[in-house]
Amino acid sequence: MRFASDNTSGAAPEIMAAILKANEGYERSYGADAAMARVTDLVREIFEAPQAEVRLVATGTAANALAIATHVHPWDGVFCHAHAHIAEDECNAPEFYAGAKLVLIPGEHGKITPDALAEVLATTGESGVHGVQRGMLSLTNVTEAGTVYTPAEIAALTALAKAKAIPCHLDGARFANALIATGATPPEMTWKAGIDVLSLGGTKNGCLGVEGVVLFNPAKAWELELRRKRGGHLFSKHRFLSAQMEAYLTDGLWLRLAAQANAMGQRLVQGLRDRQAHVPPADANMLFPEWPAGHHDRLEAAGAQYYRFPAPEGRERARLVASWSTTEADVDAFLNAF
Amino acid sequence: MRFASDNTSGAAPEIMAAILKANEGYERSYGADAAMARVTDLVREIFEAPQAEVRLVATGTAANALAIATHVHPWDGVFCHAHAHIAEDECNAPEFYAGAKLVLIPGEHGKITPDALAEVLATTGESGVHGVQRGMLSLTNVTEAGTVYTPAEIAALTALAKAKAIPCHLDGARFANALIATGATPPEMTWKAGIDVLSLGGTKNGCLGVEGVVLFNPAKAWELELRRKRGGHLFSKHRFLSAQMEAYLTDGLWLRLAAQANAMGQRLVQGLRDRQAHVPPADANMLFPEWPAGHHDRLEAAGAQYYRFPAPEGRERARLVASWSTTEADVDAFLNAF
Amino acid sequence: MRFASDNTSGAAPEIMAAILKANEGYERSYGADAAMARVTDLVREIFEAPQAEVRLVATGTAANALAIATHVHPWDGVFCHAHAHIAEDECNAPEFYAGAKLVLIPGEHGKITPDALAEVLATTGESGVHGVQRGMLSLTNVTEAGTVYTPAEIAALTALAKAKAIPCHLDGARFANALIATGATPPEMTWKAGIDVLSLGGTKNGCLGVEGVVLFNPAKAWELELRRKRGGHLFSKHRFLSAQMEAYLTDGLWLRLAAQANAMGQRLVQGLRDRQAHVPPADANMLFPEWPAGHHDRLEAAGAQYYRFPAPEGRERARLVASWSTTEADVDAFLNAF
Amino acid sequence: MRFASDNTSGAAPEIMAAILKANEGYERSYGADAAMARVTDLVREIFEAPQAEVRLVATGTAANALAIATHVHPWDGVFCHAHAHIAEDECNAPEFYAGAKLVLIPGEHGKITPDALAEVLATTGESGVHGVQRGMLSLTNVTEAGTVYTPAEIAALTALAKAKAIPCHLDGARFANALIATGATPPEMTWKAGIDVLSLGGTKNGCLGVEGVVLFNPAKAWELELRRKRGGHLFSKHRFLSAQMEAYLTDGLWLRLAAQANAMGQRLVQGLRDRQAHVPPADANMLFPEWPAGHHDRLEAAGAQYYRFPAPEGRERARLVASWSTTEADVDAFLNAF
Repeated sequence: MRFASDNTSGAAPEIMAAILKANEGYERSYGADAAMARVTDLVREIFEAPQAEVRLVATGTAANALAIATHVHPWDGVFCHAHAHIAEDECNAPEFYAGAKLVLIPGEHGKITPDALAEVLATTGESGVHGVQRGMLSLTNVTEAGTVYTPAEIAALTALAKAKAIPCHLDGARFANALIATGATPPEMTWKAGIDVLSLGGTKNGCLGVEGVVLFNPAKAWELELRRKRGGHLFSKHRFLSAQMEAYLTDGLWLRLAAQANAMGQRLVQGLRDRQAHVPPADANMLFPEWPAGHHDRLEAAGAQYYRFPAPEGRERARLVASWSTTEADVDAFLNAF
Repeated sequence: MRFASDNTSGAAPEIMAAILKANEGYERSYGADAAMARVTDLVREIFEAPQAEVRLVATGTAANALAIATHVHPWDGVFCHAHAHIAEDECNAPEFYAGAKLVLIPGEHGKITPDALAEVLATTGESGVHGVQRGMLSLTNVTEAGTVYTPAEIAALTALAKAKAIPCHLDGARFANALIATGATPPEMTWKAGIDVLSLGGTKNGCLGVEGVVLFNPAKAWELELRRKRGGHLFSKHRFLSAQMEAYLTDGLWLRLAAQANAMGQRLVQGLRDRQAHVPPADANMLFPEWPAGHHDRLEAAGAQYYRFPAPEGRERARLVASWSTTEADVDAFLNAF
Repeated sequence: MRFASDNTSGAAPEIMAAILKANEGYERSYGADAAMARVTDLVREIFEAPQAEVRLVATGTAANALAIATHVHPWDGVFCHAHAHIAEDECNAPEFYAGAKLVLIPGEHGKITPDALAEVLATTGESGVHGVQRGMLSLTNVTEAGTVYTPAEIAALTALAKAKAIPCHLDGARFANALIATGATPPEMTWKAGIDVLSLGGTKNGCLGVEGVVLFNPAKAWELELRRKRGGHLFSKHRFLSAQMEAYLTDGLWLRLAAQANAMGQRLVQGLRDRQAHVPPADANMLFPEWPAGHHDRLEAAGAQYYRFPAPEGRERARLVASWSTTEADVDAFLNAF
Repeated sequence: MRFASDNTSGAAPEIMAAILKANEGYERSYGADAAMARVTDLVREIFEAPQAEVRLVATGTAANALAIATHVHPWDGVFCHAHAHIAEDECNAPEFYAGAKLVLIPGEHGKITPDALAEVLATTGESGVHGVQRGMLSLTNVTEAGTVYTPAEIAALTALAKAKAIPCHLDGARFANALIATGATPPEMTWKAGIDVLSLGGTKNGCLGVEGVVLFNPAKAWELELRRKRGGHLFSKHRFLSAQMEAYLTDGLWLRLAAQANAMGQRLVQGLRDRQAHVPPADANMLFPEWPAGHHDRLEAAGAQYYRFPAPEGRERARLVASWSTTEADVDAFLNAF
């Protein structure tokens, strides 16, 4: 009954085995390891993008900040949802790395609508040097609200950005969960939908700590490398990042892990709705249910762990996140306690 | 015969076992894990500093940049050796994090002398707002030249800094090797010698990737945490950093690993000197020998790996680094090939 | 009929005379000029703040950015109105100087209400290192909408900020106009109302180019000087900044200039309302009238200059700004053309 | 006998007259004034560079920092003399604006030799992402030591830079004085000698406060404008910058002012050498003489003002700077007092 976050679970056995295996003998440092070449091959194959480049870091905040900084100027604005992770949960890291300003766009259930984006794009960057310039669009999938954009929804947003000649980033901290939720392929969710750079999450989905920055425009690779090193994010014993990502992407492990997390998330959604809780749209492994006051303490007493959120008088709200290691027994125990 | 760097070796078995063990079950994220509390206790005990605070990151560049940024202003100068790692090998990361300027001090064998430091301290920060202000002293031990400062030498330098009211940082990427080389205790090499903040290296000495920033002035801990998160260096699955550092500092593992590395380094020094190579002062596990031209190709053919350095006509220079995993057989094979 | 901005007018004769007089002979550079000491005395007297410190720069953007940067950390949020000059018209300068993030607060007629501020203050800075920290409140008076805060309104907002222990900035690019509009004294509008640092505008109100940063907490003065120099804003021939500010503050010149600007602004407001134009609240020298479509071209043909704003179908909107040099004849010509 | 700096003198009468004239009536703000178009024409004509772009700021530090930032990345090194103004007198402004690191090159009499530059260029930027990258060459003419580079000397240095594909900046805070000292034309001293961007000084040579950034590569103009605004250096009443620069460049005023300054500087050099003082090479309006101890106090008693520098036992050193307003009577009075 550990639903606080998908990062409170450990690493999947396959990932751990890969780490152990990678530890044998000597290996070149700073990304010149043999496994990194295999990671690049895997990414190109999976994304059907033979020119793509990928670089690895250990945290999602680093991946996002570097991905964005590599594509904007310090006088630019980065358009993102008002509750995006880059806006609310990264302690100004995107601004630190990019210099740019985040331009927040409201939207229900964590999603930006084309109308909302179009309005902001139309009025930003129209006052010469005085106002912020149009810099980049950054979307998140799975969103911070637990909903999911379809490839078509992403394409509708990136089309607006591209009409203004700005690149598009996808924060895919839960990218595998978004694939599972939509049935989309990796290329459909990214470059075929107008995405130029992807933060490809591993940590939340069964790795120890590894995220990829995938550049569909490889011309930016050298700048990304310099920014990674300047940010202190280049691992000397890089083999341990490569090993995680290689195992993660091999034989569909990443999709199997996400499928389990999503299935358990949906079991929670269904179970709570069956029990008359209100569960807003939740398409993957994260949900924000609301129920009458009184359940929090009982659930806690039963051993359930999750975040409590502010709620109206007489109500309670929660954030529940299932992970690759969540079991049906965990979910059912929670529902029974509820 | 892998002497390219101590970061081409893997992790020690004890470290790997700790990682495996840490993977069991769920754990709180972002540094709230139980192992981190034990790491803090270990650091306080080992450094005889009950108020000290320690925070973990995954790379040495991050540790240095955060340690420095937490103690200076953007208009300050950081006094360091002209060949310090922060000056030559971190792609402007210290400047990125701190804003400050590095003020380079020359010195033989990688060491700053009190006279050289006194001269720079006397003439810096004396032109009002126009010139750089005095900000911090940053020393490195083991130095980039493979030499070692004794605690008394460090104290002589920090005394000059403190007379100008500036704090002192020690880049201890090879801190354990410096302890072994000098026989000093951790407190003797740090706060008793005037050091305010230490980059406590783990990665080069048998960990996968973990470095501590040890604050002997705990008032800076919150700022350090914010800077760590803003830099993207806070691990969500932080337990895997804690586990490495806990195992590293437990039962003297760190010192045993460094003792092996240093012993093998000194065996190389002695063996090469016995064979008429010129080896400048080298006190720990790294040496920069020079010999007549012709050896490089033969050594490479024999399977030896190390960095070649520019040398005068008819001569060759090398950098050799021994690690915790270097064996006597490795060294002797190299010497025989030589 | 030049109503595009108060910065399209020139300098008042008294200011120009002071510049000419300041040009006689030699004078110490970089702020050590005798006139600067007199400026400090004037500011202390006028603000009834014997400890206050003031430093001069040439642009309002520099004054705001330096004032803010001197009071916040790079991980902080600066709370300001969504249409504040620092948010919309300074090309990310506050973020450049301070590193911090602007947290935008909506509000009618350019003003922040206590309720809106309280809500944002309550939910910001409550997620540990992950979210932005509470850093500073920045208000603007006259607001960007042409309205004015009374001292009591300012005090109500700063009280909320101070309850969270954060300092308060006032962007007073049109500070003199705000004083005239409210009848408040300089201390009533600033430190007596909880303001810690003021951007004291001169340029828009009859100077060539000078703004003061007034610190009611003088402990920050040295940091401000360093930031000013590091930003390239310290004038070598500083006497020409001092001379402007001295003349501006002497014998109430600044208030006479603002009184004229405000009187002409109000004459426009009244005249347009008399002619059935819709004029939203406008308390000083700037107004944003709206009228039926068709007037723009006729006014332009008559020689009127001002900014056109987007308006609903069948309507037109404008920004009109009166300055110290606007005459009754200018206003009446405009109204007649209308 | 005011020889402390050329910035302790006022503005030339022609400059002041232009300011007064510019004050008439209304004018467009933020650089759209009619005079700015004339400044651009003048610069293009004088530099025989029909594509050149020029933007104005008020301080030399701003001009240098913006010129450099527009041409380098944050991970780059800017090669400059160890005593360059950007290195010693700008409080880290170049680093603040550019992010880059200054790579200091020693050299006698304030000048970089081709050999010294070649050595640094050969060894910098050769360690992948780890070390600083080659970014830009920044020269100063007149140098901080009062010497002057000939166009041929500049060309020899820029050729080395261009062989490494990096652009070249000239800090011309005393550019007119360098032209007079060498007899070179503006194009000979700049783009014909390989300079890509020039800080064109006005303030020290008879203006109130204006410097031009001249881009011989006009593609950078928009970025320069954005950086200028973001730095708070865009004047609203820009006409007062334009007016100064227009008058300065009209009918050779700038050269006449510099010719007077240089003539008086050389009169000091000759007079002091005639009186047995040691005067190191000094080609323009600034000199650093050395003489036996005892003169300082007598000169001060006679009313002479200048900077005293540290000197060996029994000796005294000084910095003397003549300006456009220095007269023969001033110089002779100083020499007589000496």
